[in-house]
Amino acid sequence: MRLRKWVFNLLEPSASGSRASKAIELLLITLIFLNIVAIILESVKEINEVYADFFHEIEYFSVVIFTIEYALRIWTAPENPKFAKFRLKRLQYGISTMSIIDLFSILPYYVSIALNLVPVDLRFIRVIRLFRLIRVLKIARYLKALNLIQAVLRERKEQIVLSVMFIVFLLVMVSTIMYYVEHDAQPEKFSSIPATMWWGIETLTTVGYGDMIPSTTLGRILGGAIAILGIGLFALPAGILSSGLTDHLHGNKKKYKRCPHCGGELHE
Amino acid sequence: MRLRKWVFNLLEPSASGSRASKAIELLLITLIFLNIVAIILESVKEINEVYADFFHEIEYFSVVIFTIEYALRIWTAPENPKFAKFRLKRLQYGISTMSIIDLFSILPYYVSIALNLVPVDLRFIRVIRLFRLIRVLKIARYLKALNLIQAVLRERKEQIVLSVMFIVFLLVMVSTIMYYVEHDAQPEKFSSIPATMWWGIETLTTVGYGDMIPSTTLGRILGGAIAILGIGLFALPAGILSSGLTDHLHGNKKKYKRCPHCGGELHE
Amino acid sequence: MRLRKWVFNLLEPSASGSRASKAIELLLITLIFLNIVAIILESVKEINEVYADFFHEIEYFSVVIFTIEYALRIWTAPENPKFAKFRLKRLQYGISTMSIIDLFSILPYYVSIALNLVPVDLRFIRVIRLFRLIRVLKIARYLKALNLIQAVLRERKEQIVLSVMFIVFLLVMVSTIMYYVEHDAQPEKFSSIPATMWWGIETLTTVGYGDMIPSTTLGRILGGAIAILGIGLFALPAGILSSGLTDHLHGNKKKYKRCPHCGGELHE
Amino acid sequence: MRLRKWVFNLLEPSASGSRASKAIELLLITLIFLNIVAIILESVKEINEVYADFFHEIEYFSVVIFTIEYALRIWTAPENPKFAKFRLKRLQYGISTMSIIDLFSILPYYVSIALNLVPVDLRFIRVIRLFRLIRVLKIARYLKALNLIQAVLRERKEQIVLSVMFIVFLLVMVSTIMYYVEHDAQPEKFSSIPATMWWGIETLTTVGYGDMIPSTTLGRILGGAIAILGIGLFALPAGILSSGLTDHLHGNKKKYKRCPHCGGELHE
Repeated sequence: MRLRKWVFNLLEPSASGSRASKAIELLLITLIFLNIVAIILESVKEINEVYADFFHEIEYFSVVIFTIEYALRIWTAPENPKFAKFRLKRLQYGISTMSIIDLFSILPYYVSIALNLVPVDLRFIRVIRLFRLIRVLKIARYLKALNLIQAVLRERKEQIVLSVMFIVFLLVMVSTIMYYVEHDAQPEKFSSIPATMWWGIETLTTVGYGDMIPSTTLGRILGGAIAILGIGLFALPAGILSSGLTDHLHGNKKKYKRCPHCGGELHE
Repeated sequence: MRLRKWVFNLLEPSASGSRASKAIELLLITLIFLNIVAIILESVKEINEVYADFFHEIEYFSVVIFTIEYALRIWTAPENPKFAKFRLKRLQYGISTMSIIDLFSILPYYVSIALNLVPVDLRFIRVIRLFRLIRVLKIARYLKALNLIQAVLRERKEQIVLSVMFIVFLLVMVSTIMYYVEHDAQPEKFSSIPATMWWGIETLTTVGYGDMIPSTTLGRILGGAIAILGIGLFALPAGILSSGLTDHLHGNKKKYKRCPHCGGELHE
Repeated sequence: MRLRKWVFNLLEPSASGSRASKAIELLLITLIFLNIVAIILESVKEINEVYADFFHEIEYFSVVIFTIEYALRIWTAPENPKFAKFRLKRLQYGISTMSIIDLFSILPYYVSIALNLVPVDLRFIRVIRLFRLIRVLKIARYLKALNLIQAVLRERKEQIVLSVMFIVFLLVMVSTIMYYVEHDAQPEKFSSIPATMWWGIETLTTVGYGDMIPSTTLGRILGGAIAILGIGLFALPAGILSSGLTDHLHGNKKKYKRCPHCGGELHE
Repeated sequence: MRLRKWVFNLLEPSASGSRASKAIELLLITLIFLNIVAIILESVKEINEVYADFFHEIEYFSVVIFTIEYALRIWTAPENPKFAKFRLKRLQYGISTMSIIDLFSILPYYVSIALNLVPVDLRFIRVIRLFRLIRVLKIARYLKALNLIQAVLRERKEQIVLSVMFIVFLLVMVSTIMYYVEHDAQPEKFSSIPATMWWGIETLTTVGYGDMIPSTTLGRILGGAIAILGIGLFALPAGILSSGLTDHLHGNKKKYKRCPHCGGELHE
């Protein structure tokens, strides 16, 4: 049991401050980054042609390390004080978000090995490779920045849901009207309401690629009015996320306290 | 009269908390959503070709239900405590925004039936179909988010009107100058001041489709200066809407109260 | 002299509340709007071909009225309490902004009549016609919204100048670097540093027309970094204008007052 | 030693208020501006063809003056009270940011002279010419606006690093997903993940040039969702910079002080 405790402290970042645990943390972070870089570079044809073998080796090495990591984390889960109250500590850990991410980081590799025995659909294999992207999320364990986003999303959940509802409502209205206005003039571009929604998103986020542009006078008048008034609504969810993060980064949660003298609330 | 009271409570959301009233509310919301989805999917040619009959059935079913709903709401209007003071309670309800929306949700169907007796202009029929969009607004009765926008618009009415005036003034100035500068170089694109206004809106909202681009040196210098300084003004109405909504979503209306000690105003 | 006093009160908006003065104010505002509409519509070829004579009549009528207005304002200037202290009251009024706008609203017409006697450069005549745009500014006398902008510009002058300096510096740096990076790959588009500045403005204001796009890898990396970090700086002057206006529209100038109890500053 | 003190006061802006020192400051600022203008205009082929000799003379003159300036600043460094505590005052000054900028403003010229003796790679010469851009940074000594940016960057360093990390993470995720979704449909545009990142930056900053546009239905749905939610995150570093600068421009650093009465914090 002492060994399990020792291994747990090695793996859990900031649990113990020992040199060895820091080295292991660094190794794992480096390996995740290496995987991200590999995924990115592998997509560049010229690079993949030359370094394909190297990428396979990284893949092989990563899966070995991540599998050992996963096994050790499951094994040492009972040492985690968070699960002290539970009976099935390993199961409890096994269904936590980070553990599932860990599992799906290695699972696709084993699945693709199993599938290689029989000829299968190439697209299925592609999907399996896409799953490797999940490894990027392993970094969440070490990146405080991502915990921040999670915290903001939880805190402002209600507001974000409400503002997304606004946006969907606005987008449906705007796209339907624009479809009826522009369809006759540009039947190929404004071919249907879902197609017109692409115009709506492009315009209301002010991205404006320019692949769909209203051409009729009425369409331009409506499009202009929509842009001027709708941009603010479309900026809401992004703004909520952004202001939530800024609040966290500043460390102020804007709590107010009543003044015992006047009863007015004061900044704290 | 007891029946009328009972029916009123069934229809009015959150008036009674009974199971039946909630079921009816859910049924109506589902039907509105079904209509929205139908309007959207009907516009996709491939889908419409296959499911045209199905959409007609939805249409038929919706009109029946919405007609019954409209009739019952008019019938039960005298039960509404809001109209307790009025004599012509049904008329009073009949001219309310929601009632008119309800009426126009079904009227086009009856009009199009009446018009089918005699051959009419196809474009007129199209306009009638467009009216079905009004059904989307029926959701406003159940969607708090839309009441919010209404509240914000009423609260900041003055500011929005003023900032829209700014924008119109700025747009006229900017487009007129740009027209005189660019017309000779690109007579087909910058063909008139109203046409140049499309460029103005595109640029000042930063959408920038790229269908109209100043090409002369003077036009680019002016266009650049206009973009840098004008963008802030064009963002005003959207910003007012957006900040108004954020205030409501946060639940703080920024009231200030005077401190009895110092006379300074405090947050409440 | 009583007549002059009476005429002054008629012309000066909100000076007297008489019916006649309000009628004159309304007439002048209507005439200015008519001129704006005329300038806009005149630019549309199809409309101008049909209504050219009508536009000439509006022009003729406007010049007559505006000339009378100008003459009367100069004549009644000594009645203005603002100039009570000055000796040359009419001159003092004559060099005020609004008076100069009034003068330049009519001058081009007289100049163009004078020039018609001798054949002149057509472009010069065009410039004279462009001067008619100044009439749009006559509306400033009646539009509180414009006084607001003026007030904001005066208040935040220093900030706006500073932030425009930032922008110019940033634009020069960014465009010079981008020119050296992209010139070889796209010598026709990124032909010189001033030409590259157009790209800089387009990108940093996020308008992004798409007529100039970096194509080299280095150009895209730099362009991306520039966009991510520079957008905030380019939004500064617009943001200052916008926040200044919002402050005015809210009516709060964010003055702080010291609390006699604790010495801390309080909102007032 | 009196001469050295006198020269130091002449060169150091705002050290002494004498006429001569102000004249020298003005001369140096003018020369820097002249260099900036020369760099910009030299890139315009038509202008360079005519004024090439003139630009060479400016270059020659600037290098002479800047070399004298650099030598004098090194010579007078021991007079600077900032280095009073150090032993190797000249070295201490020589490795300061401004001194290095001064050095690199003249060095390329001498290097290019040295290289002219032997035929070298033309691209290398180009890089040397690019170094002249560093002269633009010499203006930092006189421009308070740039000190401001520096101060903001130092103050908000942590936040900017964190938000840039967000962005990089978001960009990697978004681009990888989009690459897998769009690669088959547009193998030439979405050719690799790094190439898709250009789309990601373009879209998330809302620049939207329109050279890379998702064409598949899934790509558009994902692209739209990414745009709506991601824009806020991408605006973070720019927003932090911008708000930091606005705070400085307003002169308020948002310090809070505790109220001795109620313990609540108050604005100061």
